[in-house]
Amino acid sequence: MEALLVQYREMIRTELDRAVDFWLKYSHDKQYGGFFTCIGKDGKIYDELKYVWLQGRQVWMYCRLYRTTERFCRPDILEAAKSGGSFLQRFARVQPADGPGKCAFCLTRDGRVVKVQRTIFSECFYIMAMDELARVTGDKEMQNDAERMMDQVVHWVRIDSSGLGRPPQCGDAPVNSMAVPMMLLCLVDQLTEGRAGLAGKYRELGDWCVTQILQHVQRDGKAILENVSLDGQELPGCQGRLQNPGHALEAGWFLLQYAKAQGDAELQKVAVAKFMDVPFLTGWDKQHGGLFYFQDVDGHCPTQLEWNMKLWWPHCEALIAYLMAYSHFREPAMLDKFTQVYDYTFSHFPDEKAGEWFGYLSRQGDVVLDFKGGPFK
Amino acid sequence: MEALLVQYREMIRTELDRAVDFWLKYSHDKQYGGFFTCIGKDGKIYDELKYVWLQGRQVWMYCRLYRTTERFCRPDILEAAKSGGSFLQRFARVQPADGPGKCAFCLTRDGRVVKVQRTIFSECFYIMAMDELARVTGDKEMQNDAERMMDQVVHWVRIDSSGLGRPPQCGDAPVNSMAVPMMLLCLVDQLTEGRAGLAGKYRELGDWCVTQILQHVQRDGKAILENVSLDGQELPGCQGRLQNPGHALEAGWFLLQYAKAQGDAELQKVAVAKFMDVPFLTGWDKQHGGLFYFQDVDGHCPTQLEWNMKLWWPHCEALIAYLMAYSHFREPAMLDKFTQVYDYTFSHFPDEKAGEWFGYLSRQGDVVLDFKGGPFK
Repeated sequence: MEALLVQYREMIRTELDRAVDFWLKYSHDKQYGGFFTCIGKDGKIYDELKYVWLQGRQVWMYCRLYRTTERFCRPDILEAAKSGGSFLQRFARVQPADGPGKCAFCLTRDGRVVKVQRTIFSECFYIMAMDELARVTGDKEMQNDAERMMDQVVHWVRIDSSGLGRPPQCGDAPVNSMAVPMMLLCLVDQLTEGRAGLAGKYRELGDWCVTQILQHVQRDGKAILENVSLDGQELPGCQGRLQNPGHALEAGWFLLQYAKAQGDAELQKVAVAKFMDVPFLTGWDKQHGGLFYFQDVDGHCPTQLEWNMKLWWPHCEALIAYLMAYSHFREPAMLDKFTQVYDYTFSHFPDEKAGEWFGYLSRQGDVVLDFKGGPFK
Repeated sequence: MEALLVQYREMIRTELDRAVDFWLKYSHDKQYGGFFTCIGKDGKIYDELKYVWLQGRQVWMYCRLYRTTERFCRPDILEAAKSGGSFLQRFARVQPADGPGKCAFCLTRDGRVVKVQRTIFSECFYIMAMDELARVTGDKEMQNDAERMMDQVVHWVRIDSSGLGRPPQCGDAPVNSMAVPMMLLCLVDQLTEGRAGLAGKYRELGDWCVTQILQHVQRDGKAILENVSLDGQELPGCQGRLQNPGHALEAGWFLLQYAKAQGDAELQKVAVAKFMDVPFLTGWDKQHGGLFYFQDVDGHCPTQLEWNMKLWWPHCEALIAYLMAYSHFREPAMLDKFTQVYDYTFSHFPDEKAGEWFGYLSRQGDVVLDFKGGPFK
């Protein structure tokens, strides 16, 4: 079994190297700074728009690799991360730099705002990027910038969302959408890692996120639903019945990671039994393999046209989830599930020819969108 | 050839009867008025949300059938249309009824606002519904209501869009999106039909719409692009390269209808040669048949996950377009194209078992979403 893991590790290492090479080679905008995100199958830029959340992810990824993995501790990677961070600081924020406000969702190549979403996610990926970059550069002011933005996001989520710009509507009751506490829990982990002094500040927020996420366990523990009411009840209609197996698996490893850090044995079990095993059981396509993108808990057809497609990221979340679960619990069944996802993933998503992964397959497993980077990848 | 047309007409008549039966049977909300729009394959309501634009279409469809087709001139159809119209007048408008303002995109079953889009389309379908209902009932005040809303929409489109609620962004230059002049041209046709007194009022607007639509002929006449700049130039990136074959074909028959009414022979030819034959040639899937949903004029992969799916409505637009073209020009090649679309459409979309049509097929032609009504169908 351990030999199998060594083999997996080697394969993942190879794929990671290929991906980093790809992005270093094709995505850097040497003229305006930052990164191109819309990159075709052979590395060609097919659109110059710059998606802020993807810029943030790339900065974070470069810094995290630089900081934690020796072979990536290279000056070119650090410089690229700094260029991306500088582009974000200069252009991502819609409001003046002296007040932490909204970030754009999308910018022109030279940094002009194209679109602002009325959600928190661009801001969250800004925080992730800035905090990780601050860790690498030691820039204390950048870390403060990330923390101030975090305070703002938490204010929008927990106190007053009016600053997001979406007028309230009388038929549109507030919803506990699992993405929000998941995102915040991920940021709590990011901001507190190795900083004992900050653990206290974010402890209550972390626990609140866990409580919010646990509300999504519904139907006597037999389903993880994406949207519930603020008091944890099932919502009517498609919104209430929506399942996103990859997203639930992602919540699973967020929870397991948090539970391990807190030494919470009960939460460790719930993370695996509810947030991994339940969506894995219902979300796996028994006919063609792979995880469905969306499902309806009552078996109705989802209204999302892409519901039966196989996307790369739910499979990544499943891999992380079951590898983390196995590393922690050492139950062979967990490794079996990891292997099942691994076999599908590595036989379907990597592009052997040009490097990096395809992101979007049909239900049958054929590549349907062949770009390497797009608005959401 | 005429015998073939008689056979087609019979088949279309049968399908229309089946569809009307389906919606009369399953969609009426006898408690709150208006129509359910989310209806599963066997008629089951799977979500009670009411989409305003679909309510508007159903009112329009009932009234148009009642007014123009003898076998549908039935009291139950008229009553259903009135119920839908009354629901829209009571609930669709976000602002007070004494000023023509925004309409909601989506309402709860009992009419509370769930979502307001920052576009003109819900308002446009409100106008279509109210005008057609006014024609059937003779309600002059209702016709005035439709015309006042039309004035408001034209104001948003041509003078000042700030009332739509989308803050301008410096990197987001205004775009001539083909949907907007198409929608307005359709409304000009609706509002002026048989009303000589109104033809003058909307004549300039109709001509403006045609000019705007013609700007979408690009690449030396070899492509219809969905989005161009306000002065008719191609835009950079995915947005600028986007093609939607079914939408272009729809524009084709809008233009042909307008050109016939105006006696504009040159525009009649352009409507067919550019807006029908060009998208039909590039948009037809030579491998599996049917029209693609989205394409990129340079052959890049579109970023819409559903780009290669076969939807019912582009095929309906193509049928209308080539039937209208053939009826006008009597060129056999036009009937051949109609036949090609007809054969694909009638062998793939109708649900022989439960009635009505499926709406969403995979590229290969298999039903992927099996509901009869959803947020956009």
